[in-house]
Amino acid sequence: MMRLNVKVALLFLLSIGVLTIVILYSICGTSEKDWQRLKYNPKALDLQGADEIDCDINGEYVISCRKEGEEVYIPFSFLHRYFEVYGKLATYDGLERFEWSHSYSKIYHPKSKYNPKGVFMYFENYNVEVRERVKCVSALEGVPVSTQWESQGYYYPTQIAQFGLSHYSKNLTEPEPIRKIIDDSEKELAKWIVPINAKLERSYDSSIESRILKFVTSENYLEGIRLRMDHVMYFVMRLDIILTSNSSFTVTLQKRETKELYYLHYINSDIWIIVQDNNIYHGIGTSQEWKTLTRDLIIDLQKGLSYLDKDRSKQKLPRSKLKIVGITLRGSGSIDNLTLSSSEHIQQFYDAAEWFVRHQDRETGGWPIYARRKVAPGFNELQPGWYSAMSQGQAISVLSRAYHHSGGDIRYLTAALKGLKPFKVPSSEGGVRATFLDKYQWFEEYPTKPSLFVLNGFIYSLLGLYDLMSISPLGHAQEAESLYSEGMTSLKEMLPLFDMGSVTAYDLRHFTLGTAPNLARWDYHATHVNQLLLLGTIEEDSPFKATAERWIGYMSGKRANHN
Amino acid sequence: MMRLNVKVALLFLLSIGVLTIVILYSICGTSEKDWQRLKYNPKALDLQGADEIDCDINGEYVISCRKEGEEVYIPFSFLHRYFEVYGKLATYDGLERFEWSHSYSKIYHPKSKYNPKGVFMYFENYNVEVRERVKCVSALEGVPVSTQWESQGYYYPTQIAQFGLSHYSKNLTEPEPIRKIIDDSEKELAKWIVPINAKLERSYDSSIESRILKFVTSENYLEGIRLRMDHVMYFVMRLDIILTSNSSFTVTLQKRETKELYYLHYINSDIWIIVQDNNIYHGIGTSQEWKTLTRDLIIDLQKGLSYLDKDRSKQKLPRSKLKIVGITLRGSGSIDNLTLSSSEHIQQFYDAAEWFVRHQDRETGGWPIYARRKVAPGFNELQPGWYSAMSQGQAISVLSRAYHHSGGDIRYLTAALKGLKPFKVPSSEGGVRATFLDKYQWFEEYPTKPSLFVLNGFIYSLLGLYDLMSISPLGHAQEAESLYSEGMTSLKEMLPLFDMGSVTAYDLRHFTLGTAPNLARWDYHATHVNQLLLLGTIEEDSPFKATAERWIGYMSGKRANHN
Repeated sequence: MMRLNVKVALLFLLSIGVLTIVILYSICGTSEKDWQRLKYNPKALDLQGADEIDCDINGEYVISCRKEGEEVYIPFSFLHRYFEVYGKLATYDGLERFEWSHSYSKIYHPKSKYNPKGVFMYFENYNVEVRERVKCVSALEGVPVSTQWESQGYYYPTQIAQFGLSHYSKNLTEPEPIRKIIDDSEKELAKWIVPINAKLERSYDSSIESRILKFVTSENYLEGIRLRMDHVMYFVMRLDIILTSNSSFTVTLQKRETKELYYLHYINSDIWIIVQDNNIYHGIGTSQEWKTLTRDLIIDLQKGLSYLDKDRSKQKLPRSKLKIVGITLRGSGSIDNLTLSSSEHIQQFYDAAEWFVRHQDRETGGWPIYARRKVAPGFNELQPGWYSAMSQGQAISVLSRAYHHSGGDIRYLTAALKGLKPFKVPSSEGGVRATFLDKYQWFEEYPTKPSLFVLNGFIYSLLGLYDLMSISPLGHAQEAESLYSEGMTSLKEMLPLFDMGSVTAYDLRHFTLGTAPNLARWDYHATHVNQLLLLGTIEEDSPFKATAERWIGYMSGKRANHN
Repeated sequence: MMRLNVKVALLFLLSIGVLTIVILYSICGTSEKDWQRLKYNPKALDLQGADEIDCDINGEYVISCRKEGEEVYIPFSFLHRYFEVYGKLATYDGLERFEWSHSYSKIYHPKSKYNPKGVFMYFENYNVEVRERVKCVSALEGVPVSTQWESQGYYYPTQIAQFGLSHYSKNLTEPEPIRKIIDDSEKELAKWIVPINAKLERSYDSSIESRILKFVTSENYLEGIRLRMDHVMYFVMRLDIILTSNSSFTVTLQKRETKELYYLHYINSDIWIIVQDNNIYHGIGTSQEWKTLTRDLIIDLQKGLSYLDKDRSKQKLPRSKLKIVGITLRGSGSIDNLTLSSSEHIQQFYDAAEWFVRHQDRETGGWPIYARRKVAPGFNELQPGWYSAMSQGQAISVLSRAYHHSGGDIRYLTAALKGLKPFKVPSSEGGVRATFLDKYQWFEEYPTKPSLFVLNGFIYSLLGLYDLMSISPLGHAQEAESLYSEGMTSLKEMLPLFDMGSVTAYDLRHFTLGTAPNLARWDYHATHVNQLLLLGTIEEDSPFKATAERWIGYMSGKRANHN
């Protein structure tokens, strides 16, 4: 009550003050015009306040603005739509302010010269497998399955390479993984609970020179061999495994808050992912040979949940909300070296590298993309099996690093060198090479008719060539070198064609189709900038750095001059 | 006093009202947060009003904005600087509103197919000679003298052609001229006042088959032969004249309001323009042959005044403020057919056409430009005597119309056809032909090294070619036709390179120099659009109309899509 009285008293005094000012002003200062305003617009009583004013936008429509003295104020909601600028209210130290952003993407300034054996660009920040367009990480291959252009899923070499390169880069930038061995049949033996009709046996397998755990259970689903756990630390699982048909290896996860249980089943099958209630199935293939599985359990759960409830897929699932409460073995099979780790980046990197070794077309050297791709009206549809210079280049970046990291495993070098072949074949003949006005050679991310000239994909392909020519042993680098030099000439000459004066073009379809330019949204624009900054560390006499700096300016509203 | 009392009374009532509302609100509706605002921010008393809020622009600087509920209002003065949009307050029917303009130029939608014998584009709206960069209209040649790149002045063929084309177009769109004959030595004889030492004689001149007026005065400046006038209607003078050296023909103008007198002296001399106090001298040359002078007296006065007072040159000098009060003949000479007209457009058009016939280089077919031109850093400086495809093309447009209008005067056709020669010579060899990546032929407004590829100048050159191929008699059109078709192919293919997604490029210097694009300011952008709309009426199956419509959208803030 006390507070209310004070309020009333203060407001009374304030009002008296306003009253006095108003009377004084009316005697001393009110012109005829003010008088009209006061008469018809009660809001004008706040003499310093803003008036409403209509604002006619290009003679096309009218919005409501504010006028204060000589200044007119335009509502940001309109500016957001009209100019596609971004704004949000934020509070710092109790003071609210409005943050205006011309763009939304991040620029990475390289600290030193690009190193083909090191981090790939800024890919340590990538998390490819959480992306919505990743169906799951295949347990057959250990690499992501894309749904970008075919909803049933397909292996997309570019995505697989980015998965590999991000894990390679994280391996260099993140802390060493911490591992907890759960069962290795040697030093660490877990306390499996074996039901009556089941059998668990530890024996020596000479094929892998290791003691292993063999299991057989009844076909009754409920009678699995179980290991109770209460693990909240590490969610990347690794194990060596053989499963006979109808057998499974299951990890049980629990949401700590709701106690709800989820079952990640790894089964003898070629399926990618199947979900039924809280059961998420990944097929590890049907081979009866030893296989090393590396599974990020959080990813596997999240991909599964997205099938249960589309909205849920966008919710981030923090590790802190989950625990591993058990493992169950069903059917028959063998396991070894069951481990939980904070990460297994280098293992996941090799999963990608091995995929490229296994899935390269022996004849063409390409990694075929089994998805239809219609870039835009006016271009032919790319038919399943097409090659992409970006896929080839990024695959070569993976393989070059694998060759280096493995200490010279020739399989990686061979695959990388063979991966150059499509660079020499015109896109009209199934390769990735396009020519700009019979003059400049370009490596096409999408080898369409007419040519498309996607900038970022081209630069990724050049990085692949640079990686390979840098890590190749003496006498193996010429081909990559000559392709790189050819491409670099084109890039230097053609780069200005992508400069739109306030933003960049994603490709040159406006030239080849004669349509409007396809402007790069800000994240692609930032990719252009980041790529040029990186190339600037390799090609020191190039205009790349200066161009990148100019393009950074575009991100805060700067524009090229007009005449 | 009455009014003041009413004011005070009304304001008192209003204030009481505000007081009541404030008290009521304070009791019923004030939350703790509102209370804080009221306490620390007296302006918040206007409860629905706007608060001040800082707005952080891209993390670079802070401006003061307004916040009202969830909406933030941005000051237009900032938007004007940041986006280069335009705005002004305007009042219609007593209601003030704010007019937002994304751009400022005018689009002319052609009403029918372009006709090479008709109006040139929308040049009936041009008034070349009033432009500040026109030093004067030469009385030797009857065409403008440019100061654009050399302050002492030079004949700029592009400007002369535009002068000619604008008068040709005005002749088609404006009312018929009204003429008042002042003296023709036949039917109309003016009442000249002849001082004692002077002589005025009317005789037959067989060379022009006409009776003429011959005059001789003493060398005393004051003793001229005078004609008193009081003429306020027509200010375009025409006469046939011969002046011996040190002779002059003077028109006296008076400002009706101030009675101030100005003297326009046309003298036997090669000077362009000299000004001394209120005396403005134009040289008509020193030849002793008959010459027809066509003078817009207002223009002659205005150009003269601009030398007296630079600021005055920008003041418009309306005809209604002036009158012609006299004409004076001094020295010796002859005159005939002295006339005042509302306009003499076709005569001024022919002055331009004749200039092109007289000043063409016989060998090269070019109209040399005697001014140095440094387009931008990175380009070589064009040396005096260079040719411009735009000049050639626009000259050809003038000559084609002269050939048509004159009923087939072969001199015009011959000059136009010879004017094609520089189109076939590479710019590196003194011609105007550039080649884009060894593939597309371009006609250069500025034949620089490296090539510049100015769009609007190229299109003007194509219009010249089109005009010539259209008006040429059978068997004379092939060369213009083949150059037009070659250029049209280039235009169709290269046009998209000028599309910057929200504006157009003026040229392709970004490609040839590797710099930022040189964006077209809105009047050049509008020229691009107007040219394409016109070409769209000739080339019906072309993308010109669709491109023009897209580019019109840019003028009201529309942009190409981003991906």
